[in-house]
Amino acid sequence: MTNYDKFTTDEFQNKINTIVSDLSDKDSIFKLSEIYDKSSDNEHIKIIEKHLSLLMKPYKNGSIGLAQINPIAGDIEYNAKKVVKYIIHAQNIGLDMVVFPELILMGYPIEDTIDRHPIIVEENVKWLKQIAKITTSTTAVVGFVEPRKYDHLTGKKYYNSVAILKDGKIQQIVRKSLLPTYSEFNDYRYIEPSPVVGCQPAITLGNFNKDNVQNCSKTTVVNGRKYGISICEDCWNNKEFFNDTILYSKDPIEELSKENPDVFINCSASPTRAKKEQLKHNMLSFISEKYSVPIVYVNQVGAIDNSSFDGSSRVFDKNGKLLARAKSFKEQFLIVNPEKDLGKIYPLTKGLEKTLTEQKIYTLEYEPDLERTYKTIIQGIRDYFNKTGFKRAVLGLSGGLDSTVCAVLLADAIGAENVFGVSMPSKITSSASKNDAALLAQNLKINFTEASIKDMVETTNNCLQKLFSTVEKSWDCRYKQSFTMDNIQARSRAMFLWGISNEFERCLPIATSDKSELYMGYATINGDMSGGFAPIADVPKTKLFALARWLNENREVKNAIPEAIILKKPGAELAINPKTGKPLIAEDALMPYEFLDEIIWRIENKKEHYSDMVNSEFLYEKKNTVTRETKLEWLDKFYRRMSTALYKWSILPPSVIVDSRSINKYDYKQPITSSRINYKGLDESEIEKKILALL
Amino acid sequence: MTNYDKFTTDEFQNKINTIVSDLSDKDSIFKLSEIYDKSSDNEHIKIIEKHLSLLMKPYKNGSIGLAQINPIAGDIEYNAKKVVKYIIHAQNIGLDMVVFPELILMGYPIEDTIDRHPIIVEENVKWLKQIAKITTSTTAVVGFVEPRKYDHLTGKKYYNSVAILKDGKIQQIVRKSLLPTYSEFNDYRYIEPSPVVGCQPAITLGNFNKDNVQNCSKTTVVNGRKYGISICEDCWNNKEFFNDTILYSKDPIEELSKENPDVFINCSASPTRAKKEQLKHNMLSFISEKYSVPIVYVNQVGAIDNSSFDGSSRVFDKNGKLLARAKSFKEQFLIVNPEKDLGKIYPLTKGLEKTLTEQKIYTLEYEPDLERTYKTIIQGIRDYFNKTGFKRAVLGLSGGLDSTVCAVLLADAIGAENVFGVSMPSKITSSASKNDAALLAQNLKINFTEASIKDMVETTNNCLQKLFSTVEKSWDCRYKQSFTMDNIQARSRAMFLWGISNEFERCLPIATSDKSELYMGYATINGDMSGGFAPIADVPKTKLFALARWLNENREVKNAIPEAIILKKPGAELAINPKTGKPLIAEDALMPYEFLDEIIWRIENKKEHYSDMVNSEFLYEKKNTVTRETKLEWLDKFYRRMSTALYKWSILPPSVIVDSRSINKYDYKQPITSSRINYKGLDESEIEKKILALL
Repeated sequence: MTNYDKFTTDEFQNKINTIVSDLSDKDSIFKLSEIYDKSSDNEHIKIIEKHLSLLMKPYKNGSIGLAQINPIAGDIEYNAKKVVKYIIHAQNIGLDMVVFPELILMGYPIEDTIDRHPIIVEENVKWLKQIAKITTSTTAVVGFVEPRKYDHLTGKKYYNSVAILKDGKIQQIVRKSLLPTYSEFNDYRYIEPSPVVGCQPAITLGNFNKDNVQNCSKTTVVNGRKYGISICEDCWNNKEFFNDTILYSKDPIEELSKENPDVFINCSASPTRAKKEQLKHNMLSFISEKYSVPIVYVNQVGAIDNSSFDGSSRVFDKNGKLLARAKSFKEQFLIVNPEKDLGKIYPLTKGLEKTLTEQKIYTLEYEPDLERTYKTIIQGIRDYFNKTGFKRAVLGLSGGLDSTVCAVLLADAIGAENVFGVSMPSKITSSASKNDAALLAQNLKINFTEASIKDMVETTNNCLQKLFSTVEKSWDCRYKQSFTMDNIQARSRAMFLWGISNEFERCLPIATSDKSELYMGYATINGDMSGGFAPIADVPKTKLFALARWLNENREVKNAIPEAIILKKPGAELAINPKTGKPLIAEDALMPYEFLDEIIWRIENKKEHYSDMVNSEFLYEKKNTVTRETKLEWLDKFYRRMSTALYKWSILPPSVIVDSRSINKYDYKQPITSSRINYKGLDESEIEKKILALL
Repeated sequence: MTNYDKFTTDEFQNKINTIVSDLSDKDSIFKLSEIYDKSSDNEHIKIIEKHLSLLMKPYKNGSIGLAQINPIAGDIEYNAKKVVKYIIHAQNIGLDMVVFPELILMGYPIEDTIDRHPIIVEENVKWLKQIAKITTSTTAVVGFVEPRKYDHLTGKKYYNSVAILKDGKIQQIVRKSLLPTYSEFNDYRYIEPSPVVGCQPAITLGNFNKDNVQNCSKTTVVNGRKYGISICEDCWNNKEFFNDTILYSKDPIEELSKENPDVFINCSASPTRAKKEQLKHNMLSFISEKYSVPIVYVNQVGAIDNSSFDGSSRVFDKNGKLLARAKSFKEQFLIVNPEKDLGKIYPLTKGLEKTLTEQKIYTLEYEPDLERTYKTIIQGIRDYFNKTGFKRAVLGLSGGLDSTVCAVLLADAIGAENVFGVSMPSKITSSASKNDAALLAQNLKINFTEASIKDMVETTNNCLQKLFSTVEKSWDCRYKQSFTMDNIQARSRAMFLWGISNEFERCLPIATSDKSELYMGYATINGDMSGGFAPIADVPKTKLFALARWLNENREVKNAIPEAIILKKPGAELAINPKTGKPLIAEDALMPYEFLDEIIWRIENKKEHYSDMVNSEFLYEKKNTVTRETKLEWLDKFYRRMSTALYKWSILPPSVIVDSRSINKYDYKQPITSSRINYKGLDESEIEKKILALL
């Protein structure tokens, strides 16, 4: 890829001239915009803008810039400066309009911070007002948290709003009506639903409520065109598309359509999750076709803690045909004109693209989701490090699949030179494992060393055995068999990693637990599940195998993961299986991963019960003979272990949500003390008997 | 206290006869009910019920039993059996009615469990239907999660409902209209607000929505009296009481009042928090007086994870006068008759009782809240252990305040014999600290031993120093000064405690971090902040000092906490202060605790900003000379440290919410990546300048 930043002004001018003369006008617009996205040199930007402004002349009327931004939650100055940058850019090339994602000045989500520290809301309003002053004839649509007057107030203290800025002033305000409050969304905790859809006059800023709804046009008129503006969830409630199963009784898009808008605009902050991209594509297409109105959807990009936003802002024409789509997982300024067929479609991640119009929403097929999974996690790691100020990562390399995939993801997210892999063998660790780890590190070009935990384990064990003998004198309840030795090993390793993190600047240790094992509580507290970040906590084991193969085929450096790592049966090498004399295999302690992952998938996606699963055939059963007894044993084990794993989920480090459902604590909450749920249920007659026995 | 359970049937009969002849009829009713609460012998219960049934004859018309239950979240069978027990009891003594807390069949909160595992909702409906069958002429008001039909549904999938059971049938259903979605409450995540207040016919069960609201009486008629029934938050929206600042536009109590009820009934699950008890008392009194209708408020008791419910169910007569109040923090069956002045007022915790009608909601005075704090935490610990199946606790005893108070609380919550205190001295630990710890353990009669961490620290340090030298070759960013050694000590101790927990049955290690230090991130990951439960995570240090003194004065065994522990300056004894040559005092590293705790209090309760605090005089400043420079330095340090402590809050073990606001992750959420918030803000002219600089 050409690095245009290194060119002198003259060289740059020449390059641009060549592009413009070689390519069609349309293609030039997008090529120049791509160069703009990577430019930091002001002179270069001036040159691009001069050309774009000329190229855009025929497309000016009805043109829109989609400003797909990666904000930092609560860092108003950082976000506002990005907004200013794109407003100026849109003005300089003479666009009609520039549109930003939902709540762009604040970043989404900000959660309860606005309640505990209301100053950040005051700040975002101050910035908004000052930004309005620099606007010219280009209309800017800017999301912000709007405070409502504090005293004598009915409802929550804030609106989730966008301001329409033009000619040095705030012209209008649009407020969100539908407030997602499920999964990772918590809008209703602090946001009041708007009693009205579409625009209200600027004068209502800060003191709007249901009693002073203005009887005005609900659209924004720009250059003779009417825009119907909505915010995120407002466009996700079409009764027909969702087959009569909807969350809210009101449909803002339906209401807006009655104002005969020329274009719908939707400002969003919609994180990526498995299967959601297909849904979003089809829904937006459906809406634009149904109302014969193009829709411009501008999405946030970047990760905020556990949520990874993919961007992929897009435009559908009035026939429901995709006209433009911004890049996934990248900041971008994309120019479109839905009226004049101006737009470029950047690809989604490969598998998604293929399945976009398929209705197979619920299958266990991983292939179409692997590139998205990879990019979602990469962005999640990178933004967590960048936004918290960390730069380096240290992780244990066991030669097993989990730490291997984590190492690859880290190397790609923050740079191989910033990753340190430490092989920490115990007396159980095989030399094959050590060699695999070393070879992986070499292939990835990450830093690597070996540090035995033997001394640590020995000393800890000596100290503990003495202590146990003492405790035993008072407490007559020592386990005959315990996992104490296994845990000492895992914790000694974590002690090393946290030590390095404490001793070296801006360095985080990594928790390598995967989703299948977290479901089973098969992870050591203060051991492998401890770290500053947990990259693969929402990826089940069987998908990790598929991802490992995908990485070997699709990364620039092929086959970085030694084949032996993918072929070996997962096992923590913490204990010896007395039956085989070899290290215990995880599947011996748990159950076949294919079966386990299918249980998880059935519970998460199909909301199946124990009895549903008893009575339906698993994919694993199609391929292997499983007695009914074994199947019941596995299902029982699953529910038993899951019930006691709830505490571990609650202390899991930040991680990226990848799947359509997860056990991430910001997505799914279950009381730890609800561990006695009877997941099998009882039938009516059993219940009746139990009640009669009490009489 | 007499243990009536040990009496033979004849002895018991005699005892009861004596009570009934010695006491007035009213007093006998309450005395017998108290004995009932502790009885497990069926013969005894029959005797009590026979007497109560006679004693209640003159009070029967309009009588109500308040069944203040401690449920287990999701354990439908356990909860339902308690409901059956109390229904039978109410029937046997001939009450008109028996009322249960909100969602009693499910336990509150259940969070997303009902969404991921819908079987528990099916189960709670099955149990409800079977329970209805055993009802007779005594009306039972039973809370449950009501599913809405799944397909072609508008809105959330569930209602938060109570069923009115009588004569073997479900008679009516009341559904919650106002859904708290703030702090620890998440009702709107899964519950649809009811479009109508009061009762709807039983036939609507499972398929009610806004289109089939029945035009029927909204009250429940029992024995000629009309009862207006509401659920928890439904009664918390009186515009007048809350001075025109309310969360919802609808007031269910106002609407119910139009049906001219004889009595209001409110089924609640309302956790205790500082200052809330006063508010609740005054609000309920206000409502009953305003409408000249008695109100019967039945609250859940017991803790579910981080929320501790105090019970204290109560009845106000139609003049707003308190007529009855159940015990705090105890299960109880309390009989009342608001019409006939039958009721007993059990005391609230002492300090609360004193401040009940005071309007000093926001002061930093700890005294009135100490007994409540103690009982809230005790119940939190006890229920967490009981409901998860744990029995024993192990904690480090440093001779410092935090571990000391934790040890006392644990001894009182789960029994001294189930607590093991381990003194784990390092070479920095003073002999005074060791002696204080030993003396404390002796006073508390908990198990105690000493285990040096010297070997662990030495081995770990040796291993790490080697490792650091290797890492340093690749990474040129080793800190000149680090906290690595401090952390190794804290982590070695946690390694011991988790080891004991792994080796002995049903044993949890305890995290001893306090609220002040958690705000400052002054706690070691995988060290002192690690554990299965964190008893004092919502108690600031200065309150802990007050609590320690209170414990010494108010526990049965006086002065269990050695005076030296209360007098010494807090410090972790992890490092030597180079200036003094003595162990570093926490206040040297942080700031005076009095000042720190006032910042926390101002942010949490008064929502003050940095600049508010700069400009107002702290209590600490009234007593000590603080230069402006020092004050700014402390404030800066506070915001800087708090911003980097967010991650630690996210991995904190379960703990009891005590204060009116907390940093518990189920109460307060702030993105970890929002660590760059500018808490000081900028003024408009600064913002303008920054924007102009971009043009």
